[in-house]
Amino acid sequence: VADLTPMRWWGWGDPGRSTELPATALTALRAELDVPERTVPPVALEDVRLSDPGLSDRALAGLRKAVGEEWVRQDRLERVTHAAGKGYPDLVRMRAGTVEHAPDAVVYPADEDAVRAVLDVCAEREVAVVPFGGGTSVVGGVEPLRGRMEAVISLDLARLDHSHEVDTKSLTAVLGAGLRGPAVERALGRHGLTLGHFPQSWEYATLGGWVATRSAGQASTGYGSIDKLVTGLRCVSPTGKVKLPGMPATAAGPGLRQALIGSEGLLGVITEATVRVRPAPDVSHYEGWMFKRFEAGAEAFRALEQGHVIPDVARLSDEAETRQALSLSDGASLAQRAGRTYIGARGYAEGCLTILGFEGTRQDVDSRRARARGIMRRAGGLPLGAAPGRAWLRQRYEGPYLRDALLEHGILAETLETAAPWSGLMRLYEGVRDAIAGALQARGTPGRVMCHISHLYPDGASLYYTFLAAQQEGAELEQWQSVKAAACDAIVAHGGTITHHHAIGRDHVPWMKAEVHKHGIRLIRAMKAEVDPGGILNPGKLIPEHT
Amino acid sequence: VADLTPMRWWGWGDPGRSTELPATALTALRAELDVPERTVPPVALEDVRLSDPGLSDRALAGLRKAVGEEWVRQDRLERVTHAAGKGYPDLVRMRAGTVEHAPDAVVYPADEDAVRAVLDVCAEREVAVVPFGGGTSVVGGVEPLRGRMEAVISLDLARLDHSHEVDTKSLTAVLGAGLRGPAVERALGRHGLTLGHFPQSWEYATLGGWVATRSAGQASTGYGSIDKLVTGLRCVSPTGKVKLPGMPATAAGPGLRQALIGSEGLLGVITEATVRVRPAPDVSHYEGWMFKRFEAGAEAFRALEQGHVIPDVARLSDEAETRQALSLSDGASLAQRAGRTYIGARGYAEGCLTILGFEGTRQDVDSRRARARGIMRRAGGLPLGAAPGRAWLRQRYEGPYLRDALLEHGILAETLETAAPWSGLMRLYEGVRDAIAGALQARGTPGRVMCHISHLYPDGASLYYTFLAAQQEGAELEQWQSVKAAACDAIVAHGGTITHHHAIGRDHVPWMKAEVHKHGIRLIRAMKAEVDPGGILNPGKLIPEHT
Repeated sequence: VADLTPMRWWGWGDPGRSTELPATALTALRAELDVPERTVPPVALEDVRLSDPGLSDRALAGLRKAVGEEWVRQDRLERVTHAAGKGYPDLVRMRAGTVEHAPDAVVYPADEDAVRAVLDVCAEREVAVVPFGGGTSVVGGVEPLRGRMEAVISLDLARLDHSHEVDTKSLTAVLGAGLRGPAVERALGRHGLTLGHFPQSWEYATLGGWVATRSAGQASTGYGSIDKLVTGLRCVSPTGKVKLPGMPATAAGPGLRQALIGSEGLLGVITEATVRVRPAPDVSHYEGWMFKRFEAGAEAFRALEQGHVIPDVARLSDEAETRQALSLSDGASLAQRAGRTYIGARGYAEGCLTILGFEGTRQDVDSRRARARGIMRRAGGLPLGAAPGRAWLRQRYEGPYLRDALLEHGILAETLETAAPWSGLMRLYEGVRDAIAGALQARGTPGRVMCHISHLYPDGASLYYTFLAAQQEGAELEQWQSVKAAACDAIVAHGGTITHHHAIGRDHVPWMKAEVHKHGIRLIRAMKAEVDPGGILNPGKLIPEHT
Repeated sequence: VADLTPMRWWGWGDPGRSTELPATALTALRAELDVPERTVPPVALEDVRLSDPGLSDRALAGLRKAVGEEWVRQDRLERVTHAAGKGYPDLVRMRAGTVEHAPDAVVYPADEDAVRAVLDVCAEREVAVVPFGGGTSVVGGVEPLRGRMEAVISLDLARLDHSHEVDTKSLTAVLGAGLRGPAVERALGRHGLTLGHFPQSWEYATLGGWVATRSAGQASTGYGSIDKLVTGLRCVSPTGKVKLPGMPATAAGPGLRQALIGSEGLLGVITEATVRVRPAPDVSHYEGWMFKRFEAGAEAFRALEQGHVIPDVARLSDEAETRQALSLSDGASLAQRAGRTYIGARGYAEGCLTILGFEGTRQDVDSRRARARGIMRRAGGLPLGAAPGRAWLRQRYEGPYLRDALLEHGILAETLETAAPWSGLMRLYEGVRDAIAGALQARGTPGRVMCHISHLYPDGASLYYTFLAAQQEGAELEQWQSVKAAACDAIVAHGGTITHHHAIGRDHVPWMKAEVHKHGIRLIRAMKAEVDPGGILNPGKLIPEHT
């Protein structure tokens, strides 16, 4: 049975769960960021302002015929939970009860043929279709914009949740697009396998969403981001189905699999993917290190990658993020207080916390750990043992809950990310950090700007920023927009990619031209015109309407 | 100064070099394949039948203006050397002096702007443009077909031979498309680096050609095929330039880099690429192994890959190829005769020769070798020491010369290749082998059909076939066509890709629909219509004219 459990409509995750900030951390944040003492609770569901569904009777009848009457939903909760993803501006709007764009219906196809039938109805009736996986987009990727269409539906793929084939000899699996992270791991776990794909949104995000947004997970340094894991896929558009079987490699023309990975619903609805899987690890070892300076840690990471000693997880927090990690931590407090003393005594008090994770067979993990240890020490790293690794693992999916708790107290909490070659990484790091800080300052809300490196490649790495500030009451969205724009402009100016793993969605569209230039956009548009001549698929996302 | 040294026009490689078959091998082949004793020399250059160049005066003037008068060539040698690649049917035709399609001119642009200027002239004057790198295509990729155009030029990119930037920190390089293999390694070698891309055509093939055809080299199991090495590229088409900078990773929409890799000149002229490079290896160790059966060797390879013990070179010959390797060998004869005795004594006489190559630092090579040794032994492998590895290295670029020598004696020698997931590899292996043997038999020319595995992936591997037979005198092309078709049909029927690293070109077009289906072809065609509305770029290649 498909897992249709929705997330909390106004925020992240399990509605039954509440997350509060540690009181000391909240007090410190209020003081540092000059946040007035207030709580800003979300409105009640019935107070969300929602226009009536605008689907024509014919369209509605067609959709009901395509998927079955019970799978076309127009109730308030369905429409509201499918009205936005989980980006900061989405949450600000939802909590305030201002849903700018709600779907006219939420449609749940059972299989690929039903997807095709829905697209036929929508193409005929001029209804925009927004594919919806876990609804976890933080860049507006699932916002139900209708573009030039008459109406818009959210196409929830939760029922495409079959594990079609597990090939234990080739270590591949054919999986339905609607499987959420835990369901993917359950399906593979029955065969002793894992996908190794664990983005922070893992508990809710789906395989299809990962493929459509070119996702990377926390362990993608080792397992490879989703574009490295997908060897085949099926994709349905208004003009037909693209079927590309799983293949270890091919020289048969342009890389169509890769052209569909990252297509964000504009080139079709991804219904299933063939993915590379691995034996579930016998051993998982996570450990902490400290570096005196961010750059020294980055150099250690470069040495690991270029020396072919690849950890599965590698994270290096800058000084600001490390300070927060050490102050916010609660659980393992004893161990960590002890750790802090040790760190201070060794002269690493203002340093940079690093997590390395190794997964696999005992022999493989031991061998990589031993070699990594040598490289890390030579680069100036101080080993902290396993406690920080365990602490990180415990809270790896907590970030989004924490953000809700911050919003509850009127604190802006946002993340954004980029990547660049090693030779330009420190310039990019400083440029974007300073741009975010400067933009917050300019709004009169000076912030805490933090960064970590989280994905390593032989030729470069990703940077992931988190920033906190007092919300500008009554101008929350303008405040966010000005900081976001400053950060994106700085990314472009310093040679980074506009997104390493959050995708383009709605929010990054203005920077897409800088990323792939006019002719790259024309290539995407040409493919789109071929597979979606009516322009019903996810309008307003990925590419600008006009170049 | 650009390296414009052409290959021997009627065959492979250095015109100053002659290759003869060992007399005993020739005698044995003649007996086995029932080849009449004859020599079939190529015609003289002046006897090649060549129509007059058909470029209009205006087109010619435009081209001369675009690249300079001296860089528009119409002499016999230029036209003939650019009239075909080096596939078997190409060689059969060239040796007989029947050039079906010669370019009306050979044009050598100096840089990207000159490429653009040439395309402008050709778009205006309806002249087809066939990009030409090393001219080593074995699938007809550089044949100057004009399609619906008035005339056709071969666009030789040899002058785009600059090494634009070597980033020793990020381990990347920006290289001109026209650089041949040795020039690539020279440019990188000055910085102590290597690309690690060594296809059999390496001495003549160019970087741009590798990118355009999604090339894999002999060491690509370790270094990665060209699509894994390219992180950015520039590509010029009649409607503009696509510029995608080198980036370690990005989630900014569809994978346009990968959509242009393998585009075979249809989506633009690749002018430069950013590639991942590595430190030149301190140590190169190549060694031989024997397996009693092909399948046992394949299982050993699977265990290496899936156990993350990746050799840089991994080749497993089947029994037939092993027999030929042991009988054709001359040079290291003493060592090999000794080896044969040893192999026979251990019960591996009818076995499968395996080459493993490891390159890198001493520590890295030793570590991988030690782990590989355990896996190979457990899978039933018999170590043969370094001699077979050295022998393989010595003759790694000799195959094409040997083919000329066989043609000289009326012997068909052809290769083709595929790849598939591990779970279907043995079925595919047998199916294609039997199809080739059956088709040769059906022509009355029973052959020797051999195969090796040469590229490993966690989820599968490539198969590379070589087959020899007596040429059917007077029906050489029909003979080839019937065998080629049988092999390709068998590849499709058994779930292989139509090409793992030779690309589509002219010869594989009929199977492209089976590979990417109608809608995959429509996607390629849509991109092509956008960047090349006049259809001047490499007509008749990659995709069928009509679906």
